[in-house]
Amino acid sequence: MLFPLVVNIIMALIAYLVTLRVIPKLKEKFIKANLFGIDMSKTTSDKVPESLGVVSGFIFLVTMVLFIPVAFGNNLLEKGTFPYDEYVKYILALLSICCMLLLGFADDVLDVPWRQKLLLPTIASLPLLMVYYVSFNTTNIIVPKPLQDYLGLSIDIGLIYYVYMGMLAVFCTNAINILAGVNGLEAGQSVVIAISIALFNLVELSGPLWKAHQFSLYFMLPYIGTSLALLKHNWYPASVFVGDTFCYFSGMTFAVVGILGHFSKTTLLFFMPQVFNFLYSSPQLFKLVPCPRHRLPKFNSRENCMELSTTTFRYSELNVLGKLVLGVFRLFKLVHWQEKQGVVVTNNFTLINLTLLYCGPMHEAKLTSILLAIQVLSTGLAFLIRYPFASVFYDVQ
Amino acid sequence: MLFPLVVNIIMALIAYLVTLRVIPKLKEKFIKANLFGIDMSKTTSDKVPESLGVVSGFIFLVTMVLFIPVAFGNNLLEKGTFPYDEYVKYILALLSICCMLLLGFADDVLDVPWRQKLLLPTIASLPLLMVYYVSFNTTNIIVPKPLQDYLGLSIDIGLIYYVYMGMLAVFCTNAINILAGVNGLEAGQSVVIAISIALFNLVELSGPLWKAHQFSLYFMLPYIGTSLALLKHNWYPASVFVGDTFCYFSGMTFAVVGILGHFSKTTLLFFMPQVFNFLYSSPQLFKLVPCPRHRLPKFNSRENCMELSTTTFRYSELNVLGKLVLGVFRLFKLVHWQEKQGVVVTNNFTLINLTLLYCGPMHEAKLTSILLAIQVLSTGLAFLIRYPFASVFYDVQ
Repeated sequence: MLFPLVVNIIMALIAYLVTLRVIPKLKEKFIKANLFGIDMSKTTSDKVPESLGVVSGFIFLVTMVLFIPVAFGNNLLEKGTFPYDEYVKYILALLSICCMLLLGFADDVLDVPWRQKLLLPTIASLPLLMVYYVSFNTTNIIVPKPLQDYLGLSIDIGLIYYVYMGMLAVFCTNAINILAGVNGLEAGQSVVIAISIALFNLVELSGPLWKAHQFSLYFMLPYIGTSLALLKHNWYPASVFVGDTFCYFSGMTFAVVGILGHFSKTTLLFFMPQVFNFLYSSPQLFKLVPCPRHRLPKFNSRENCMELSTTTFRYSELNVLGKLVLGVFRLFKLVHWQEKQGVVVTNNFTLINLTLLYCGPMHEAKLTSILLAIQVLSTGLAFLIRYPFASVFYDVQ
Repeated sequence: MLFPLVVNIIMALIAYLVTLRVIPKLKEKFIKANLFGIDMSKTTSDKVPESLGVVSGFIFLVTMVLFIPVAFGNNLLEKGTFPYDEYVKYILALLSICCMLLLGFADDVLDVPWRQKLLLPTIASLPLLMVYYVSFNTTNIIVPKPLQDYLGLSIDIGLIYYVYMGMLAVFCTNAINILAGVNGLEAGQSVVIAISIALFNLVELSGPLWKAHQFSLYFMLPYIGTSLALLKHNWYPASVFVGDTFCYFSGMTFAVVGILGHFSKTTLLFFMPQVFNFLYSSPQLFKLVPCPRHRLPKFNSRENCMELSTTTFRYSELNVLGKLVLGVFRLFKLVHWQEKQGVVVTNNFTLINLTLLYCGPMHEAKLTSILLAIQVLSTGLAFLIRYPFASVFYDVQ
C-alpha cells in the first residue's frame, strides 16, 4: 500500500515541474490561436494567454495514465485476480475527465453561450452514469438516524441517484467557474479543495473503506501538482489565464472522485464557499435583480486596488420575490445599499464583492489571499461538521 | 447477439442524422473562432470552417457511451458475471479515442509544428499500452507457417509488441492525414476503410473469434454514420473542412479496434493506398528530393480542373540516394519528368498527383471519386489476400 503512494507522490512532483516549464513555452501559441484575454484589473493592456488549464489538465491525465501499471501491477488477466471494481473505476474516471477537458477546451475556443454551458458537464458525466449503471447500479443510500425509524437503514433511491450524480458534476464544474475573476482565484480555490479532499482521504486511509480513499488520493496528488504549477503562473500578476477548461476539468475531477469513492456528501462540504457564492449570486443569475454582463470587482487604477462593483436599478421595477430577497440581504447586512428617489445602487452579489464590502478596497493579490483563506477556514469547518457532528446523523466509525 | 446489433444500427442512423444537422449550425462559430481555411481549388475565396471533425468525433463518442448499457446489460457486479475482458477494452477504446480527439483539436487550434505531430498519437496511445500491459500483457504472436520449423508455433515478442502497437497508432493517424487535399478525400477514404473493416467483421462474426469482431462492429457502424454525415458536408464543393482532428481520431479508432480485436494485420491491409502513398511520398518527406510547402494538385481556374503540381530542382544537387529513388520511379513510370540543362521538373510524389499523371487533368469531384474507387478496389484486393492467400502463411479457419 505504501509503495504505489510513494511513486504517486514522486510522479506528482515531476508533473508539477513539467507543467511549470511547459506553460511558458506554449503562451505564444495560445495568443497566436486567438486564445487570450485582456486583464481588466491592470493598467497595462497586454494580451494574456487564456485556457492554459488544458495544459495542466492534459499533463494530469498523462500522469494518471502512466500511473496505471504502478497502481494495478501487470498481467491481471493471467493471474486471475481482478480488482475489477477499482480498475474499471480508474479508467472510467480518466474517461470522464478527458471528456470534460475536451468539452471545456471546445467551449473556450468556440465560446458556447451561457445556457448551453450547463449542458456540457451533463454530457461529460454520461460515461460516469452509464458505466456506473452497468457495473455497479447500487443506488442505495444510508438513511440518517433520525429518519431510520420511518425509512429503515437504507433505501434504494433508484433513478434519483443518477440524477444526483449528474447534478453533482454540473454543480462542481460551474461552482468553480462562477467564483472567478481575480488572478489566482480559480486555480487557488481548486488547489485548496484538492488538498482538503486529500487530507480527508489520508485520515480515512486507516478506516474500513481505505481502498476508495487510496483511489481518490492517487488522483488528488497529481492534480495538486499540476494545478499548483498553473497557479504559480496564474498568481498576481497573472501571466496566463486558466480558462473555463480548468474550472470544468477540476470540478469534474472532484465530482468523479467523490462519486466513485462514495464520499460525495463530504466533497460537497469542501465546496461551502462555492455553495454560498452560488446562493448569494442566484438573485442575479436568475434575473430577480438586474445582472450586468460582468460582475467582477472594479479596478481603481489610481490606487491600484480593487473596489466594489455595483448595479443600478429602480426599486419599483423589481418583482415581489426580488424585493423579498433584497430585504433578507439587507437584514443580514449582506449588501451595500444606496437609495435616491427610488433608484437603488447595490453591489453585485458575489463572494468577492462581499469580501470587499466587509474589508474595504484592497490590492488584487490580497483579495485573492483573503478569499483563499476563507476557503481554508471553511475546510476546517467542514472537518468539524464531518467528524464530530456527523455522528448525530450517521453511524461513523 | 442480434438485439444489440440492431440497436447499434439504429443508434448509428440517429448519430448520422444528428451530425448532419449539427454541423451547419456550428459553422459560424468555427469561423468566428479563427478555425477556417480558404479552399485553394476554388475561384471564390470564402472562409470554409475547419476542424469540423471534432463535431462528428464527439457525436461518435457520445453514441458509443450511450450504447454501453445495451452492449453489456446492467448490474454486472451483482450478477457476478463480468465480461471483464470486453468491458475494459470498450472503455479503454473510448479513452484512447477521446484522448486523440482532444489532442487533434488542440493541434488544429494551436497549430503544432510538423515534427511534434508525430508525438501526439504516441501520447494518445499511452492509455492503450498501459491498460493492455496491466490487463492482458499477452505479447505472443503466431509464427507464419514457413518459419514455424525454426521458431515454433508462437513466440513472445515482449516489448516489441508494445512498440508495434504504438507505431500502428502513429501510422494509422498520419497515413490518412497525408493522403489529403481535395474535397471529400479524408472523410471518403476513412468511410471506405471503416466499411471494409465492418464487412470483414461481419464475415468473421460466424467464426470462433466472433466476440472480438462484434466489439469492432459496435464501433464501426456509429463511426460510419457520423463520418458519412461529415463527408456529405465535406464533399465537393466543400462547405466544411474536416481538420487534423478528424484524421487523427479516425486513425486512432481503426488502430484501437484492430489491436483490441486482434486483427491489426488485416486492418493494415485496408490501408494499402495509404501505405503506397506514404512510400511514394517518402523521398519528399525525408527530403531526398526538394519538398514544397504544399504538394496539393494545382487548380486551373480557367478550365475548372485539377492539374499536376510540380517541384523544380537541379539534378546535380541531389545525393546518391535521391538519384537512385528517382531512377527507380522513372523505371516504373511513376513520375512526370522534364529536364532542361540539368534543371528537372517532376510532379510532387503523392497518390493524388500520380492519379492525375495517368488520367490527365480532371474536375475535383471526379478526382476524389477516382481516388475513392482505388480505395474500394484495394479493399477487394485486401480480401483476396486475407482469405485465399493467408492460408499459405497461417492456419485460417
